[in-house]
Amino acid sequence: MEQRVSVITLGVRDVTRAVAFYRALGWEPQQDEHDDVFFFSAGGMVFALWGRAQLAEDSCVSDEGGWGGVTLAHNVRSPAEVDAVLEQARAAGARIGREPAATFWGGYSAVFVDPDGHPWEVAHNPGWELGQDGAVRL
Amino acid sequence: MEQRVSVITLGVRDVTRAVAFYRALGWEPQQDEHDDVFFFSAGGMVFALWGRAQLAEDSCVSDEGGWGGVTLAHNVRSPAEVDAVLEQARAAGARIGREPAATFWGGYSAVFVDPDGHPWEVAHNPGWELGQDGAVRL
Repeated sequence: MEQRVSVITLGVRDVTRAVAFYRALGWEPQQDEHDDVFFFSAGGMVFALWGRAQLAEDSCVSDEGGWGGVTLAHNVRSPAEVDAVLEQARAAGARIGREPAATFWGGYSAVFVDPDGHPWEVAHNPGWELGQDGAVRL
Repeated sequence: MEQRVSVITLGVRDVTRAVAFYRALGWEPQQDEHDDVFFFSAGGMVFALWGRAQLAEDSCVSDEGGWGGVTLAHNVRSPAEVDAVLEQARAAGARIGREPAATFWGGYSAVFVDPDGHPWEVAHNPGWELGQDGAVRL
């Protein structure tokens, strides 16, 4: 199995609301013939939004409704960019988990939680360089 | 906020067991000065394994212990490669959610679930081309 992830799908309770939230952050899904799943091109991978019940069934798991041990991060090029993305998330209606602050690992980050409870850390890590396209290579 | 994901962190109950599982799939973490979190370079992003309690606290969410509405996918270049990856996951001790089969969207896929309950779809989608490096661009 090659060392890469192709798709991250977030299960959501209201796909229309979820798409509106990510659009408010500046993201835009691809047009698709299936109107119940929304695909966003995200560098060399795909970010998708789909009904949580359908995703649970398709993923062969039972769903008790809480957080499930997955957190996404969006790394940026400066502490100021962490602040700016957090304000954008706040304006889009996200719950703010942590306001921007220095972290124990020597960076600067904040957490917002999307309308379906999926947390995103927005981080500046001075030890990780981002490519022109935003790619992180360790 | 740029349209990309930098890190996917899976919260796990036993980091040593989780690292052994992903190693059995052929993945290899980076050496790091922090020995409680393991980072895997995965194309232009990072896949990480960390203790679930620590991740929940850092992500500002409460954890009731189930699946939380996130599924990862690993896309491959042929149906035969789906079969091969699934056998590798079975040998590594994964629970098999679905055996390889044709899908409703015209592809061929299977699902395995890692030792911490995180599902992975292994898929061949004839409508999505993979780059030489495995990148998917819609």
